Amino acid sequence: MQVNRQRLEKDFNNIAQFGSLEKGGVTRLAFTPEDMKVREYLKEVMEELGLTISIDAFGNMRGRRDGRENLPPVIIGSHLDTVPEGGHFDGVVGVIGALEVIRVLNENNIITKRPVEVINFSCEESSRFGGATLGSKAMAGKIGIDDLKKYKDKAGISLYEELESKGFRPNDIASAQIGTGDIYAFVELHIEQGPVLEANNIPIGIVTSIAAPTRFKVIIEGRADHSGNTPMGLRKDALAAASELVLGVEKIAREEAGENTVGTVGYLYVQPGAMNVVPGKVELGIDIRDINSEDKLKAVDAVKRLMGEIAATRGVKVDYEILTHDEPVSLAEKVINTIEVTAQEKDIPYIKMPSGAGHDAMHMADIAQAGMIFIPSINGISHNIAENSKMEDIVQGTELLLAVTIKLAQEGEMIK
Amino acid sequence: MQVNRQRLEKDFNNIAQFGSLEKGGVTRLAFTPEDMKVREYLKEVMEELGLTISIDAFGNMRGRRDGRENLPPVIIGSHLDTVPEGGHFDGVVGVIGALEVIRVLNENNIITKRPVEVINFSCEESSRFGGATLGSKAMAGKIGIDDLKKYKDKAGISLYEELESKGFRPNDIASAQIGTGDIYAFVELHIEQGPVLEANNIPIGIVTSIAAPTRFKVIIEGRADHSGNTPMGLRKDALAAASELVLGVEKIAREEAGENTVGTVGYLYVQPGAMNVVPGKVELGIDIRDINSEDKLKAVDAVKRLMGEIAATRGVKVDYEILTHDEPVSLAEKVINTIEVTAQEKDIPYIKMPSGAGHDAMHMADIAQAGMIFIPSINGISHNIAENSKMEDIVQGTELLLAVTIKLAQEGEMIK
Repeated sequence: MQVNRQRLEKDFNNIAQFGSLEKGGVTRLAFTPEDMKVREYLKEVMEELGLTISIDAFGNMRGRRDGRENLPPVIIGSHLDTVPEGGHFDGVVGVIGALEVIRVLNENNIITKRPVEVINFSCEESSRFGGATLGSKAMAGKIGIDDLKKYKDKAGISLYEELESKGFRPNDIASAQIGTGDIYAFVELHIEQGPVLEANNIPIGIVTSIAAPTRFKVIIEGRADHSGNTPMGLRKDALAAASELVLGVEKIAREEAGENTVGTVGYLYVQPGAMNVVPGKVELGIDIRDINSEDKLKAVDAVKRLMGEIAATRGVKVDYEILTHDEPVSLAEKVINTIEVTAQEKDIPYIKMPSGAGHDAMHMADIAQAGMIFIPSINGISHNIAENSKMEDIVQGTELLLAVTIKLAQEGEMIK
Repeated sequence: MQVNRQRLEKDFNNIAQFGSLEKGGVTRLAFTPEDMKVREYLKEVMEELGLTISIDAFGNMRGRRDGRENLPPVIIGSHLDTVPEGGHFDGVVGVIGALEVIRVLNENNIITKRPVEVINFSCEESSRFGGATLGSKAMAGKIGIDDLKKYKDKAGISLYEELESKGFRPNDIASAQIGTGDIYAFVELHIEQGPVLEANNIPIGIVTSIAAPTRFKVIIEGRADHSGNTPMGLRKDALAAASELVLGVEKIAREEAGENTVGTVGYLYVQPGAMNVVPGKVELGIDIRDINSEDKLKAVDAVKRLMGEIAATRGVKVDYEILTHDEPVSLAEKVINTIEVTAQEKDIPYIKMPSGAGHDAMHMADIAQAGMIFIPSINGISHNIAENSKMEDIVQGTELLLAVTIKLAQEGEMIK
């Protein structure tokens, strides 16, 4: 019973076509034509594998392989949407790994006790609508119709409108919620997106906890003026104010909060945005993360204070909205242990580690026993066209996922 | 012989329609459909006034009213393109004032000795292609075909391509050049775009010199990374580096260069520009101005040093290109004196003042006797939808322009 590298590569290459960029990498934002096409491709593969497909109100795609008994399933998978100019591995590895697990089960005629499902979560990346892991969040019952109307992309299109126009069912979002106990376990294979595994020359990371982000959308209003005729002392430059905030977020994360705190201003728009006009308005997004709740709160509070100080000293208006404020999440002991024991049996070196990045497993942990398997990212680079992982690591990660899936799917009792 | 307020208002309101925004103000970038439509409107008005229209290779529009003799003309006018979300007065006041001067000459059957021409310069604002006063620059013979190919808008369209697609003649750009002595004088009526006239309750400014900008296009390359999994110490954040530059430009202009130095980062783009990605690349524009050449050079040198320092301390790549590096310009004594004497005769209060903003008069000064008349800007605001001037000030400015134009157009000798 063997994972097949060629089949993994074929799926990988097929998926890579949708939204691929000439310079390398891929742009496949949630619900854009590229994402809709890759979903169509996945649907065809699921059908070929004999899976029973269901698509919920938010567009999350599940393909079910029946078990001997009609018990809560083991779900494996990840997401196929990407950041703009992202890599071909983030999310994709978990989906192709899950498809390969099904293929191996099929070709070996293994009938598990529990059903096994492959999942592709909708809208995992926050790049388009400003909120991350929204598909799993909907499954955990944490998104309502009003939220769907609030999340908007740069063009002003709401998630609600987009779901509707793509044939999903935003008004029926409540139906996407899964009851606790309706899923037995969830296991996500994913690239690390950081430098730790590679630096330690370890092929597998078993994730113990996930650092959830707090995210601000900030609007700074100064006054647009002529850049030639407005003396420095009479300006209300929104970009200069924003620059203080960018450097402040960096300093707070680096020096003032916890050891593992990270803080990022990832996007920033200037209005009107012309060479000869003092910037009148800036919008920017702040992302703060830590696996320690207290340290994260310390950073969040410091950022809020800083915004007040900048408004006061520069005479600009600084408004913010908190888009996300999630607590760090611990993954299920049961799944962590199963992965660990299996890695030991297979003689695969591993470390247990936290995840600095958010993942769908974070919300799945609310409703099921959730676990994650990391494989190394070359140079730790992710969310970048240079994102890369070795195919041999993907193969080994999939072998581990296969064995773990079989173990969990053969279990009888609902343990959680 | 009287300037007619209703006619000025009619022209003003007609022109204001092209590109007007619901929230107020106007976006009429050079050679966009809005600009092409206002040009068409101006052409119709010039025809109604009996002017002989000529449009040069760069699209500069001239309407000629013949004089008794075929001498070098007096040219009056300004520009109709605007910044994004700009006001209805910048440039427009000089064009409608010039049209009204022709109307008054026509209705009073005044035949001047020299021809009088109305001009609408192409592409005065740098907002679209990154270079300002390009129409007059072309007339001064300072733009070649290669320059036209170099200037590009955000969509990557070059000025060369745009001129060609709009029916102008980029390959023939050399033909736009005017020989020294071919124009007798140029007078531009314009809003001040600053707070000085209003603060002193003076309705007229006679411009003595123009502070020309030095402009940098700067590209900062760091490394795009995942915002959750990349520790602060391992980042090469292009936006944090850019923020140091924004604040540095502000500090240099405010504290380190001359008393009148202004420095602005007016636009800034972040790539990839997503909430959960450490910025990998930033492009921004720096605009530095002074009426004192030495002070400006001091600021320019300090900005260059700062870029080197940021590159070294942050390990990012900072490349820059100097888009414009113009010398401050003195306007013609002859025109300044004519305006001053006329204002005294008409008992209109005035001050002599420099202009912090660049104007087409700057390049016209190379090839003709050039002068400028400023009228007050309410609250000194310009390049903003709140830009405003009183119609009574526009009327008075036009009366002064009329009298000055007649005086200059009656003169026989070429003095320069």
